[in-house]
Amino acid sequence: MMKKNSGAGVRTKLYDFVHHPYFTNTVLFLIFINSITIGLETYPGIFREYQNWFVFIEGFFLWFFTIEIILRIIAHRPVLHFFKNGWNIFDFIIIGGVLIFSGTHYISTLRILRVLRVMRTVSVSPSLQRLTTALLRTVPAMANILLLLAIVFYVFAVIGVILYRDLAPEYFGSLHLSMVTLFQVVTLESWASGVFRPIFEEDPWSWIYFISFILIGTFIVLNLFVGEIVNNVQKVNEMYETKMKEKEGKKEVDHEMLLREIAELKAMIKENQHNK
Amino acid sequence: MMKKNSGAGVRTKLYDFVHHPYFTNTVLFLIFINSITIGLETYPGIFREYQNWFVFIEGFFLWFFTIEIILRIIAHRPVLHFFKNGWNIFDFIIIGGVLIFSGTHYISTLRILRVLRVMRTVSVSPSLQRLTTALLRTVPAMANILLLLAIVFYVFAVIGVILYRDLAPEYFGSLHLSMVTLFQVVTLESWASGVFRPIFEEDPWSWIYFISFILIGTFIVLNLFVGEIVNNVQKVNEMYETKMKEKEGKKEVDHEMLLREIAELKAMIKENQHNK
Amino acid sequence: MMKKNSGAGVRTKLYDFVHHPYFTNTVLFLIFINSITIGLETYPGIFREYQNWFVFIEGFFLWFFTIEIILRIIAHRPVLHFFKNGWNIFDFIIIGGVLIFSGTHYISTLRILRVLRVMRTVSVSPSLQRLTTALLRTVPAMANILLLLAIVFYVFAVIGVILYRDLAPEYFGSLHLSMVTLFQVVTLESWASGVFRPIFEEDPWSWIYFISFILIGTFIVLNLFVGEIVNNVQKVNEMYETKMKEKEGKKEVDHEMLLREIAELKAMIKENQHNK
Amino acid sequence: MMKKNSGAGVRTKLYDFVHHPYFTNTVLFLIFINSITIGLETYPGIFREYQNWFVFIEGFFLWFFTIEIILRIIAHRPVLHFFKNGWNIFDFIIIGGVLIFSGTHYISTLRILRVLRVMRTVSVSPSLQRLTTALLRTVPAMANILLLLAIVFYVFAVIGVILYRDLAPEYFGSLHLSMVTLFQVVTLESWASGVFRPIFEEDPWSWIYFISFILIGTFIVLNLFVGEIVNNVQKVNEMYETKMKEKEGKKEVDHEMLLREIAELKAMIKENQHNK
Repeated sequence: MMKKNSGAGVRTKLYDFVHHPYFTNTVLFLIFINSITIGLETYPGIFREYQNWFVFIEGFFLWFFTIEIILRIIAHRPVLHFFKNGWNIFDFIIIGGVLIFSGTHYISTLRILRVLRVMRTVSVSPSLQRLTTALLRTVPAMANILLLLAIVFYVFAVIGVILYRDLAPEYFGSLHLSMVTLFQVVTLESWASGVFRPIFEEDPWSWIYFISFILIGTFIVLNLFVGEIVNNVQKVNEMYETKMKEKEGKKEVDHEMLLREIAELKAMIKENQHNK
Repeated sequence: MMKKNSGAGVRTKLYDFVHHPYFTNTVLFLIFINSITIGLETYPGIFREYQNWFVFIEGFFLWFFTIEIILRIIAHRPVLHFFKNGWNIFDFIIIGGVLIFSGTHYISTLRILRVLRVMRTVSVSPSLQRLTTALLRTVPAMANILLLLAIVFYVFAVIGVILYRDLAPEYFGSLHLSMVTLFQVVTLESWASGVFRPIFEEDPWSWIYFISFILIGTFIVLNLFVGEIVNNVQKVNEMYETKMKEKEGKKEVDHEMLLREIAELKAMIKENQHNK
Repeated sequence: MMKKNSGAGVRTKLYDFVHHPYFTNTVLFLIFINSITIGLETYPGIFREYQNWFVFIEGFFLWFFTIEIILRIIAHRPVLHFFKNGWNIFDFIIIGGVLIFSGTHYISTLRILRVLRVMRTVSVSPSLQRLTTALLRTVPAMANILLLLAIVFYVFAVIGVILYRDLAPEYFGSLHLSMVTLFQVVTLESWASGVFRPIFEEDPWSWIYFISFILIGTFIVLNLFVGEIVNNVQKVNEMYETKMKEKEGKKEVDHEMLLREIAELKAMIKENQHNK
Repeated sequence: MMKKNSGAGVRTKLYDFVHHPYFTNTVLFLIFINSITIGLETYPGIFREYQNWFVFIEGFFLWFFTIEIILRIIAHRPVLHFFKNGWNIFDFIIIGGVLIFSGTHYISTLRILRVLRVMRTVSVSPSLQRLTTALLRTVPAMANILLLLAIVFYVFAVIGVILYRDLAPEYFGSLHLSMVTLFQVVTLESWASGVFRPIFEEDPWSWIYFISFILIGTFIVLNLFVGEIVNNVQKVNEMYETKMKEKEGKKEVDHEMLLREIAELKAMIKENQHNK
């Protein structure tokens, strides 16, 4: 029991340690240094000349980040609590993934996982974490409009395959090609010069398909944007409203004071009557 | 008469049945399955191999959706009430259209009508129906600005034909080609590299036409967007205002209470006088 | 003098006549018909076959619009008052211009002036006139930001000529070419694929010029848009504020009522004292 | 000491002189004239014909602006106070830079510095200076979101080099090329027709990289824009709130008046009792 207690004490100290700004800033600094070495590695000339250094540095970061995440995991009482936070799972997958793929032949996967470490700046820095969470929180409010957009995309994609499969196989040859093409069209990139004009030359009615898709598609995307704006304006308004409510509360207090004053007045008058 | 009554009873039960979430969700689920089969059909390899299955499944959905809409039609008291709702008319045209074109040679039309069934997700799902109605309701508020845009398009299209018919027949060869080109220009897609630069080489004053059209066109389109944003912010404000009104109402009640209290005071003082 | 009076009476009647909805709607309808004939004329096949008809119709409209504007001018007391309204000047130039250029060899100018008649829908229809005035009224509020944009454009245009005159003479060969190119770049149209990439291959530092111009240019243009949005949201807020003020006014009345009631109370108590 | 005093008096007069609208407007007018001559110089034909004039004019402006900035510097008490204002440093660098590079062989740098004089319109005109300061003040509020954007850019740039270095060396050949390409992609310029489609033909999974980058990139950029809008709406709201607060203040005064009135009532009633 004695041991258990001291174990808990160590754990609490460990928890404080891994949440201390010093620890966080050291990790952020090392992620930053690692980002630079990862960037430098992409230049073949530099990589070849200092290959030994890069291998050594990578080994150091591999160990450092592994120890860091082990410390953070065991700092949580029931160890599994660590995985309740989405950002922790993100960290675990990235660091664990590198460990698993190290020494295997999936070199591209390994390298991409190592690059994703740079994204850990977000999960380690509290302010970036808050910002990203705030940005992502606006997504569910748009689930319905995203579903509508998906339906419109799917319907136009199938129609695109039916109508233009033979005219433009590189754009509408199959359902997934058609989806990619419609994504390109909704970003308005070369929708006319690249996709529409060659089809238009063969099929003079094809403008109906393209213009209706652009009108509907951009209208829905516009409303996604508008939703984002209104959400944010609303948040500002709510803050404003909260301030107003506090004032309202103060007014209600004022009002109660008035009523109490009048009640006292009545009491005085009544007393007056009885005194007579 | 007895029969008529029981008929009405059956109809009410039927109305409840077709509006029950179980029924709606079943229909949504089958539309979803149908969407997948429609998508799979576009892959010639898969279609050829399982052609019999696709024919069978299509037959099943044809019958299912026909029965579904018949049930929903006869669930309405005067049957024509069914057609008072725009979404019902949309459903009726899509399902009826497939029935009419089945077996004819308008295979493309038939296939497109079948794809449009996927859009019925919107008319069957109450939340998507509400969203789409809300999106479409913002359109009439913009009728005037759309009319202005149409006038600007028409004027520039005619001028485009007059000025550049011979220089760029593929873009300004006729009034309808000119309209399509201006739509492309207002989306800013290859307006310079594709449309403007080759004309600019021949006619050094053509920049006046293109830049003025882009400035006017995008300014009007921008104001369409701004209108959409302001509409939505206004809606939020109105909700806020309604809340405020409720509070105002409460305050008015408070105020009346104060007046009543003072009236009582007066009554007490008067009584006081009379008692003397 | 008698004659003068009756002249004034005729003028008042004329004023009422040209501002009557019947008159306005007739003019709008004839502009609409004229728009269609102007559009049909652009099709050489149709024009050649019905040339006589088109000449006759054009003659009719020329006379009709001339008489219309003469009526509207003499309906104003001091005739020059007619020219106080910008829309009237617009009408006068368009109709007068056609009269002046008729029969001359400036056929393109004449045809464009005739097309501009379609724009008279805006000056004749009161609701479109109001909308356009509202849209244009937001422009002066942006004079400063437009001036800033012009300065940035000018500076980058001159630098563009200095740096890339020889590398890309078709884009930066002279100051006015450079301006047109920068307008293309700020609309993001082929700025990379058409303008930047070929220069980038020769001059590896050219990204500084292009990316800084895009960041600064789009940032200013974005703020023009934001200004437009804020202007409109503000207008809505002001309407809302006006409503609030009315309520405030009512509250002040309520408040005065309370004070009056208390004053009466005091009077009653005083009277009470004196009665003793 | 006497001398010092009179020196201070001269300095105060000088300060008033260089801040007088006459002085500012003269400088603005000369910057405007200089802008025109700088623009005209870019036309080789004009420059060659009037070369002597251009040299003379440039000499005049060089002296004028040098004297102007010396006057403005010595008008400040401790001369170094002049450099506390960012706009003054901007002026100093531009005018000083021209002086330093005059007569050297860095002709391009010299010419660009001379063009930047046009930007001094902003630093000299108070209204443009205020606008620019206001625009730039919104940037720090977006530091976090810009950092997030930079991280996303860096991660995708490194991944782009790893995956597509060999497929598209002109776009992803090195880390800095990759950054420029991603900037092009986020502006949606030829992202499909130029960058993505050729890679897509070789690597059918490349759509994941491009579409995820576009979705994430434009989402973050959109939120930058939304932040700009919300900032501005908030500013308007704050102005509105200030007005409201003033009203609230008035209401509180009203309320205190009510309480005072009731207190007087009580006093009267008490007096009433004592008089008995």
